[in-house]
This record gives sequence, structure tokens and C-alpha cells, in this order.
Amino acid sequence: MLYPPRRLADAQKAVNAAGLDALLLTPGSDLRYLTGYHAHALERLTCLVLPAQGEATLIVPRLERPAAEASPAPGTGVRVVDHEDGTDPYPLVRKALGGPVRAVGLADRMWATQVLALRDALPEARQRLAGEVLAPMRMRKSPAEVAALREAGAAIDAVHARMGEWLRAGRTEAEVGADIAGAIRDAGHDTVDFVIVASGPNGASPHHATSDRVIQPGDPVVVDIGGTMPSGYCSDSTRTYAVGAAPREFSDYYEVLFAAQRASVAAVRPGVPASSVDAAARSMIADAGYGEAFLHRTGHGIGLDGHEEPYIVAGNDLPLEPGMAFSVEPGIYLAGRHGARIEDIVVCTAGGVERLNTLSTSLVEL
Amino acid sequence: MLYPPRRLADAQKAVNAAGLDALLLTPGSDLRYLTGYHAHALERLTCLVLPAQGEATLIVPRLERPAAEASPAPGTGVRVVDHEDGTDPYPLVRKALGGPVRAVGLADRMWATQVLALRDALPEARQRLAGEVLAPMRMRKSPAEVAALREAGAAIDAVHARMGEWLRAGRTEAEVGADIAGAIRDAGHDTVDFVIVASGPNGASPHHATSDRVIQPGDPVVVDIGGTMPSGYCSDSTRTYAVGAAPREFSDYYEVLFAAQRASVAAVRPGVPASSVDAAARSMIADAGYGEAFLHRTGHGIGLDGHEEPYIVAGNDLPLEPGMAFSVEPGIYLAGRHGARIEDIVVCTAGGVERLNTLSTSLVEL
Repeated sequence: MLYPPRRLADAQKAVNAAGLDALLLTPGSDLRYLTGYHAHALERLTCLVLPAQGEATLIVPRLERPAAEASPAPGTGVRVVDHEDGTDPYPLVRKALGGPVRAVGLADRMWATQVLALRDALPEARQRLAGEVLAPMRMRKSPAEVAALREAGAAIDAVHARMGEWLRAGRTEAEVGADIAGAIRDAGHDTVDFVIVASGPNGASPHHATSDRVIQPGDPVVVDIGGTMPSGYCSDSTRTYAVGAAPREFSDYYEVLFAAQRASVAAVRPGVPASSVDAAARSMIADAGYGEAFLHRTGHGIGLDGHEEPYIVAGNDLPLEPGMAFSVEPGIYLAGRHGARIEDIVVCTAGGVERLNTLSTSLVEL
Repeated sequence: MLYPPRRLADAQKAVNAAGLDALLLTPGSDLRYLTGYHAHALERLTCLVLPAQGEATLIVPRLERPAAEASPAPGTGVRVVDHEDGTDPYPLVRKALGGPVRAVGLADRMWATQVLALRDALPEARQRLAGEVLAPMRMRKSPAEVAALREAGAAIDAVHARMGEWLRAGRTEAEVGADIAGAIRDAGHDTVDFVIVASGPNGASPHHATSDRVIQPGDPVVVDIGGTMPSGYCSDSTRTYAVGAAPREFSDYYEVLFAAQRASVAAVRPGVPASSVDAAARSMIADAGYGEAFLHRTGHGIGLDGHEEPYIVAGNDLPLEPGMAFSVEPGIYLAGRHGARIEDIVVCTAGGVERLNTLSTSLVEL
């Protein structure tokens, strides 16, 4: 199951081992991972207080109580308390902690408004990050989590498979992007998280979104898309398309990129450091003379967040383990001209690697 | 214009007056408000360093540099510097500050990962909130901002006006919600921010989203929807529908709510404290015997964020001024039975008030 009830107890053990007195988790993936409660981040305080020992308390605004009680959280043994609009909720945090604390772990994406309010409410507590405890748990996916990511991968693959319906010369990136966004929903995602349609020179900007640029015959187009499934798990996949006959220079470096991405995927197996997966693509791209044009790391972990640990980057010597899921997405970007990126989500398995995006990575000519 | 170039200079004056040495703004509405740069919040550091005097520096990951340079930010006089994946970007913040600092204002929604990294990188600096300086600016909307909110209001009104196409007995809330989400995009929004379709007893949970519940004949249904327009400004509007003939009890309290929401809107004018707008609806609902059933504040400001200052809540004695925009959304919730909410975005004007959602607030029977 996606939210096994033992997770809260496992987290408490890890909180203890890390020398923390408690985790304080506002809405986001850390809270969802531990309790199944999917709450929106808002200015009103929602906070799970998970002490190293004893009962956990979920503090919620009164108007959220019905939603919190309908969530899986109470089934994990969490007690729900609420506060009214216009009252100060921070004394409830101290009360839930049950006494003075020396160190607390804050949800990695807690807003500064709440970080500073907690600093003032618990002045004796050293603030650290919940990620110290939860990132090591979250990056080792259970079979149920891998299945959820596999489902997300199939959903976004289904969108890429339809690209010929929308991507053609004469349309703007924004028009194509709107069609893709609809298809991401139709493929079963709850939310559309990003849609990059980067045509021609825009392809040289890795995080271009969409624009009013009209796609031209012969344009290479980088399409990087993702969303969140009802399970909470994310999809993320990039393919590069050629609208008509692409320039010779582009086709040449696409071949380099194709081979480099395959080499990175093939490098994934238990015990290999994350940095080696980065090096596998980077060395091939550099050997072909495009080292300067590959201007980002090779990948990022994925799960309940679109970007999470492990990061596939030089300097990260974390040995891969079965269940770790991440993107492999090298790119080559030539400023002012065009660019290309190929991205699959993969999971490290006992035997090596499984690609969760299963479409061909060859250049697709439309 | 939406992003007048003088804003950065105005903010610097306010930074000075507040006794801050600088604002440190990661991606989000504060950054967008000052520079027009719309960046996604990611684990890589993007941070505008705005000192009380002198040049502002926008620190971005190298792969974001093309997007940052294509944004309006460089046109506001901001210098762009970048950092490579795998390197520590925090020394760039210290360098951009140019010397020791005593107090910095952090973007209100900066992630804890970055708050704590900045605490460690600038141990001598007291961390405060950028909102101290920026919230007073942001809550007084310019005519261009009011126009953007008016456009957002018209877009979400167009979706409510089509509700009869989707909302009917025999369909699930989730099916109706998916149609609404598509229509929110079709009406011109860039993103779908929330879709609440709360039928029958689910209507008593103010922040219910959607579920697999099949809508029944006679159900009251609360539909609260919103998104973000290409301008960056948000929409948010609630109507309550009756699918067929609603229960008598419901129709009775809907009349109370209808009158209370109108009274709150009518209470809006310059000089009136925000709390009075809350009291106008609350007293009428309480007088009718439903005081306990109105379990949240009356409203929230809206602009580049869906919820921002001013909050329309007991205890907030901020006097309203022309240009302040916020929701007026009282509700009545009867646990286990049904609920109702009526929400318009309004803006305080020199002469009183303008509703930015202009559909009728009468009960709509479908």
C-alpha cells in the first residue's frame, strides 16, 4: 500500500536517532508521505507535530477539520486538534510537544512565515530540516511507490505518443502547450505541473516554458512535460522533436545525446555512486566537443515531489540502491540556435535498472 | 503597466525605513511583483538580493539564465549572476550584499531549506519577513492590477455561467470537477489552482475538493473555483447550486447567507476596518441562529497570490483603502447534511466598492 501505517513509527525511530525532539510538518510531501493527508499550503497553520516518542498531533484550521478527518491521517493514530481563524495557533504546537525541546526538524518546504513564527514560539529549539530524517526514507521507494511512478510514467508517455496531433509548423508554442496541458489531464493526472515547448532558439534555454513564437519548418522542439497523479506521484519526461527536416548540425549532436543518455541509463545499478551516472553522459558529450553546452546536472529524484533526492550530479557519491527513482536527462544547448534534451525516469532495481518511460528516445520527426 | 520600473526603488525606500539591510527573494509573488520575473520554486537557489541602497542582484542557476534574461528583470536594472549545478550558491548572496548585514527580509514563502541555509551563511543577520515591507505595497493595487483582477474575475465568471453543462445528478464530483478544470483553462487561465465540487454532506466541509460521490437529485452543491491568469493575477469565486429541488432547510439558510454576503459587500468603503466587513456578515448569520455554522473568516486579499493581505477577519482593524482587493465569502455549514458559500472578489474604490465577480448571487437551480 502507498501509505503503510508503520511509516510513522519508522519516522519516530529516525527522529530519535538523529537527535531531534520532533518533526514539525506543514502541508507538502513530507506530511503526505507520513500520513496520507494531502493538504494545500496556505497561510493558516496546518502542522503535524511528530515527537520522538508518543502521540502525534495534527494541528489544523477549524475549516479544514472535516477534510483532515476524512483523510487517512486519523487512521495512522494521529490526533487532530483545530484552531479558529483569528486566533494564534502556535501555542498549540508547544502544547503538542509536551515540554521544552532542543531541536526540531522542519518540513523542507515550510514557508518562511511559519519558520520564523516557530523560531519565535520555540526560541530554545534549534531548527533543522525534516529532510535529514525523511529524505533517506523517501528516496528508497517501496514496490507500491514504484508502481505509482510506473503508472505516472505510462500516463506521460501517452501524451508524448500523441505529439503529432498538436506539434506542427505554423502554430505557436503556447497553442501547442495548451493542447498538451489538456492531454496531461486526460491521461489521468490530477494537476499539470509544467509544460515546456521550446522551439528553435528557445530550445537552448533549458527551462523555457512556452511563448508566442510560431514554430517554423525544420525547427527542433524540446518538449518537457509532467504532472501529478491522483496517487500523489509525479511524472516528468522530455523528448525532442524535429518539425520537418532538422538542420544537419542538430542531427549530429542529437546522435551524441542519444548515445550519452543511453549510457547514463545503462550505468544505473546498485552500489554505483549517483555521480557516476552523471559522469557517464557528461564524458561522452564532452568527448564529442559539447561539454560546455551541457549546462546542468544529469538528473533529480522523483516521487511525491517532482524534484527530490537523490540528485544525479558531480560530487554526490551516494551509492544507488534498489528503489531509488530519478530522471536521466542530459541536454545539449547551443545559444541562439537550438537545443535538445532526452529524459526518462528510471528506477534502480536489484538487477540494474528499469525505465519508467518506455517510448523510444530516437529523434521523432513530425 | 503591471510592473512599473519604479517599484524596485519604492521597495528600497521601504527596506530602508523598516531598518532592514536587504530583501532576499526566492521565486514567488514577491519576486514577480518587483521584477516581473516568474520563476518556478525549485531546490536550486534563485534569489533576488535587493539591498537598501545600490544595485540589486538576481542569483540564478546557470540553466535558468536564459529565462531570467528573457524576463522583465534585467529591464528593471537588476544584474544577473549564475551558479553551476553542484556548487554552493550561498557565497554569491554574501557577495551581492557587499558587506556584513544586521537584518534581512526573507520572501514570505521561501522554503525552510533556504531559510536555514541563509541563517548559516549569514549568521550575523536577524531574519525577518519581506512581507513587512512588501505586503503593504502589494495590498494597495494599482489601476493596472485592478484591471488584471477584473479580467480574472470575468474569466472565472464565464466558467460559473456554464455550470449547467456539467453539474447534474448521476455524475460524480470528480467528473464534474474535471470538466470545470478544462473550462478554467479554456477561459484563459494559465493554471487551475483549485476546484471544489462539494455535493450534499460534502458541502459542510469548506475545503473539500472533489470525490467519487455521485451527485443526487436535490443536492445542494458548493462550487469554489479559481486559477491564475497569464498576467499572474488570480481568480476565486464560489457559487452554490441546487441540483433539482433543494431541501427546505437549505433554502431557508441560503436566504440568510445571500443577505449576509450582500451586507458584507455593501460595508466595503475607504476607512472602514477590515473587521467590520467580517462583522457585517457574521452578525446577520448569528442573528439567524447559524453563528456556529459559519466557521471561518469572511475573506482574504487576492492578487499575485490567491490568499494575501488584507484578511477580512475579526481583530484586523486595518482601515480599507481604494485599491484593496479581497474576497467576501461567508458560508453556513451543517455537518452531515449540506452547506453553502457565496464568494465574490471585490475592490475598495474611492466611492465604495466594485464587485469583480458580477454574476447573480441568488441560488442557481439546475
